[in-house]
Amino acid sequence: MSTESLLERRVKVLGGRSPLFYDKPLQLVRGEGVWLYDVDGKRYLDAYNNVPHVGHCHPRVVEALSRQARTLNTHTRYLDETVVSYAERLLSTFRPSLARVFFTCTGSESNELAMRIARECTGNMGVISTAFAYHGNTAAVAQISSVFTPAEQRGPFVRNVPVMDPYRERNGRSDEELAGAYAQDVQRAVEDFARHGVGLAAVLFCTAFSSEGLPVVPRGYLAKVADIAHAAGGLLIADEVQAGFGRFGSHMWGHDLHEALPDIVTLGKPMGNGHPLAGVVTTADLMERFSERNMYFNTFGGNAVSSAAGLAVLDVLQDERLLENARRTGDYVIAGLERLKDKHALIGDVRGRGLFFAVELVKDRASKEPAGAETKRVVNAMRERGVLLSRIGRGDNILKIRPPMPFNVEHADLLITTLDGVMSELSRRS
Amino acid sequence: MSTESLLERRVKVLGGRSPLFYDKPLQLVRGEGVWLYDVDGKRYLDAYNNVPHVGHCHPRVVEALSRQARTLNTHTRYLDETVVSYAERLLSTFRPSLARVFFTCTGSESNELAMRIARECTGNMGVISTAFAYHGNTAAVAQISSVFTPAEQRGPFVRNVPVMDPYRERNGRSDEELAGAYAQDVQRAVEDFARHGVGLAAVLFCTAFSSEGLPVVPRGYLAKVADIAHAAGGLLIADEVQAGFGRFGSHMWGHDLHEALPDIVTLGKPMGNGHPLAGVVTTADLMERFSERNMYFNTFGGNAVSSAAGLAVLDVLQDERLLENARRTGDYVIAGLERLKDKHALIGDVRGRGLFFAVELVKDRASKEPAGAETKRVVNAMRERGVLLSRIGRGDNILKIRPPMPFNVEHADLLITTLDGVMSELSRRS
Repeated sequence: MSTESLLERRVKVLGGRSPLFYDKPLQLVRGEGVWLYDVDGKRYLDAYNNVPHVGHCHPRVVEALSRQARTLNTHTRYLDETVVSYAERLLSTFRPSLARVFFTCTGSESNELAMRIARECTGNMGVISTAFAYHGNTAAVAQISSVFTPAEQRGPFVRNVPVMDPYRERNGRSDEELAGAYAQDVQRAVEDFARHGVGLAAVLFCTAFSSEGLPVVPRGYLAKVADIAHAAGGLLIADEVQAGFGRFGSHMWGHDLHEALPDIVTLGKPMGNGHPLAGVVTTADLMERFSERNMYFNTFGGNAVSSAAGLAVLDVLQDERLLENARRTGDYVIAGLERLKDKHALIGDVRGRGLFFAVELVKDRASKEPAGAETKRVVNAMRERGVLLSRIGRGDNILKIRPPMPFNVEHADLLITTLDGVMSELSRRS
Repeated sequence: MSTESLLERRVKVLGGRSPLFYDKPLQLVRGEGVWLYDVDGKRYLDAYNNVPHVGHCHPRVVEALSRQARTLNTHTRYLDETVVSYAERLLSTFRPSLARVFFTCTGSESNELAMRIARECTGNMGVISTAFAYHGNTAAVAQISSVFTPAEQRGPFVRNVPVMDPYRERNGRSDEELAGAYAQDVQRAVEDFARHGVGLAAVLFCTAFSSEGLPVVPRGYLAKVADIAHAAGGLLIADEVQAGFGRFGSHMWGHDLHEALPDIVTLGKPMGNGHPLAGVVTTADLMERFSERNMYFNTFGGNAVSSAAGLAVLDVLQDERLLENARRTGDYVIAGLERLKDKHALIGDVRGRGLFFAVELVKDRASKEPAGAETKRVVNAMRERGVLLSRIGRGDNILKIRPPMPFNVEHADLLITTLDGVMSELSRRS
């Protein structure tokens, strides 16, 4: 089966607009750890995928999944120890007030439910997200997902705050000044809602600000946002689909890194290492108030197989010390990327923490004009050289590097060396 | 671990309102075919669950799932033969115009996407569902799910048509007359929308009318509804989460049984035999028009493991001739239930087709007053005697019998005998 004929078959069933990565789509047949293999046997270093969080096809997760699938797979309307044990284990990684969990299947379902809870419990409708956010694909969540939804489709109950961009906007200000200035944007959105008679239900942010380009969030910012939300009668929803499960190395959850206590936390992608498992963590009080008037049941959410997979992910994270690895490898990658920045003028900024990195490419370090076309060339050239990554940001000019958690310093060397080669060739050609 | 202490632990993490079946919750530890086993080793005949469609823990599905989980599990932005083969195989079971599929993870996501497509492609907002419908748990889908959503929360873009109840409403009318009368309800809803300046996006019905109590749908009804929807500029969305994948034995899809051609079909529960897999099937034209302006991507939807599970379900359905089994066993069960009706005055009506049955309990066969409390007692007594079923309908008075597809005549004998015993005891006691 050639890639060309598979592409033709694909268009006939999934349509011509079902998204595919890369100018030349990549046909994969096998995955293991941080490695992926294409149909020709070529090996790729995966420096992009966060869904296979503890590594592609991790044997312990596969074994847990297979064993449970052989034994029992029912929904949560039967009493089942697996889901209870998993819920206890998961909640033990959160601060004590975040003591209850709803299980869902996808990050979209989680953000949907979080918005339903916030609107029900506050009695308000307004939700604030950023001006370049992605939180999912349902109608309600698409309204706050400004990255794909034109402003005229966002309706009266959504306000977007400008994307923070300290790389361009710091202007010598301290973290405290910057945090205050960005928090003012949230305050202004609350006030604009009020002028239109709309109360605040929630501020909903990705704690990595991933689609926004992984900005270095000024210290204290998210705690200020929580205060503003609460003062307006609303809640803070932390979308941990990107930052969660130890991605940043130093903390299990992005909101802990930012020293902010959310009222609701949404979980997704990495949670089941590829198995469709997601969830909403909240307080006992909010769950109770929501559930008094709303029956929430999710047929597949928290089923025995999903719970077994989720539990195995937590086991592997702990037993293989993957947060520690993320910190160590992360520092090493940042140092390597900084060396590349010294060497290649195209690199305007290097950001990151744990195993999540942004390399911002600019046409000129003074103007900081986004180098979108060059970034696309780098992404495709990296794929040709066997390293998978992608790009983010309003200018599509930020390399997104977010490998599975077992990514180590040897893998980091291959990433840095390959990126060095690609950027050298790019500068020779231009 | 006693059931009591597990219940206590469960409340502390999932809350006190997370739904559980039965007065005395059932703690399950193992499943196989149509059998489930509780923590004390007691065996239960599963006459309720449609998610384990080809049987609990079917070895071929488990093997397909495990093999693919060991090999590769990535999303559809890489080119992958598994998802293409599965899509081809799935679409081959539909009529030719239904030629494209979006993969999702849950029935809720499928109905969400179907409504987004209908609203985008018609330019209208109005959706018609029935007055006792359940289509899912997202905000938009909850609005049309009248069973759990109070009328005041359904908003300006939803109209509900009365639940059809030919058992009470036939009044000697022919199928054609009855189909015409019920279709008039849909026409009236369209006209009410029009009076309020709302155009019709879609009529969205479960093709089993499952929550509504599995009425015997008069021949020709759904085709008339399709005509009304199209004449109003709207679409027909067939929710096949309950009826699909051969549940009715005679046809793979409920809309084929009803001889109606929908524009969009939504799939869910039985699709992956418990694995979170769902989808939206539609025409090439609707997919294209929707996708021109909307980027739909679902991280877990159609991933390699989900596709392998879905493919195995289709293989087993075919190789084990499970539609044929559903027809044969179904006729046998109906005959048995009719005998019980002759014997027990509490049974007002017996309905069903393939492996989906409704046994409507009434206080009096003349008044047909729903016997909700008695139905609840039957459900709990059946559980005590080792047979699992549930109840549906506006009066909660309809036994819902919907076993996995390998349910055979021996299982049927056990179901009928047990139900006979429970109903005899109930009448002795009352």
